[in-house]
Amino acid sequence: MMRKAWAAGVALVLGTVAVTAFAASDAPPPAPNGIVMPEGYKDWRVIALSHRTDNNTLRVILGNDVAIAAAREGRTNPWPDGTTFAKLVWKDRTDDNWEAATVPGRFVHAEFMIKDAKKYAATKGWGFARWLGMAQKPYGEDADFAQECVACHTPVATRDYVFTTPIQLP
Amino acid sequence: MMRKAWAAGVALVLGTVAVTAFAASDAPPPAPNGIVMPEGYKDWRVIALSHRTDNNTLRVILGNDVAIAAAREGRTNPWPDGTTFAKLVWKDRTDDNWEAATVPGRFVHAEFMIKDAKKYAATKGWGFARWLGMAQKPYGEDADFAQECVACHTPVATRDYVFTTPIQLP
Repeated sequence: MMRKAWAAGVALVLGTVAVTAFAASDAPPPAPNGIVMPEGYKDWRVIALSHRTDNNTLRVILGNDVAIAAAREGRTNPWPDGTTFAKLVWKDRTDDNWEAATVPGRFVHAEFMIKDAKKYAATKGWGFARWLGMAQKPYGEDADFAQECVACHTPVATRDYVFTTPIQLP
Repeated sequence: MMRKAWAAGVALVLGTVAVTAFAASDAPPPAPNGIVMPEGYKDWRVIALSHRTDNNTLRVILGNDVAIAAAREGRTNPWPDGTTFAKLVWKDRTDDNWEAATVPGRFVHAEFMIKDAKKYAATKGWGFARWLGMAQKPYGEDADFAQECVACHTPVATRDYVFTTPIQLP
């Protein structure tokens, strides 16, 4: 009986830890503009990838179903409402077994662009949000942080404010 | 009547062309070792990415459901039977709007590793295959081409012959 009660106690504690860990990793606080991290983005498909030598990062850009359909059908200027991109960024690391290969090192952040021409009219039709590091700390002091995103994306205003060009495959 | 018959003829020809084009882009000839291109790989999820400066290429490595589950659960040495990786490779291109960003240019090839310890015992438990360019031409003169793959992967024998380390995400 003692053994059973002990086992039940351990199961309870482990269960609580599991639930806490799940909640912590799955639902970080919203961005200062109220955007909630899109669910399930880790399972989205690839839109593109890039390597930046100005800040030594590797990036993969994923898209939700709306984004993938639009990319494959060439409906990208403008991207349709409902398009969501997740850009995942890592610091450069030299591969342990291939010295001319740069691979993902420390995780830097996950950032998102959500298209809704009406809802996000104040930020050029896109909702911007970013969560920093493995701790997923929301980026920005207040809701105005997104004007910084807009400023950086303005050089590609004629591409619906999107730098990314979708990959071409056979 | 003449016009209708002509239109029907054109439709028939166009239909044939469309079917041929679809077949050509969707089902390239098998690799010389008999491996058939895995279906639906463009919809697989991301395992990792890399940038190689020895041949100036960007790569994204996708995994089928078995590979993704194994990667997320840390069952990667050995990878379980049924694991399949698709590595998609493009030549470097400088982004038109961000000069310090390297992005995918010309598509080079899609290559695959399929784990089946018994079936592919002669090539270290992995079936290797590669299709070149947008034309998806099978790589290799005969079935022995895969020994070239094995030779290149032998430095990572202690990693189940896999160079790729799965990305870490929050």
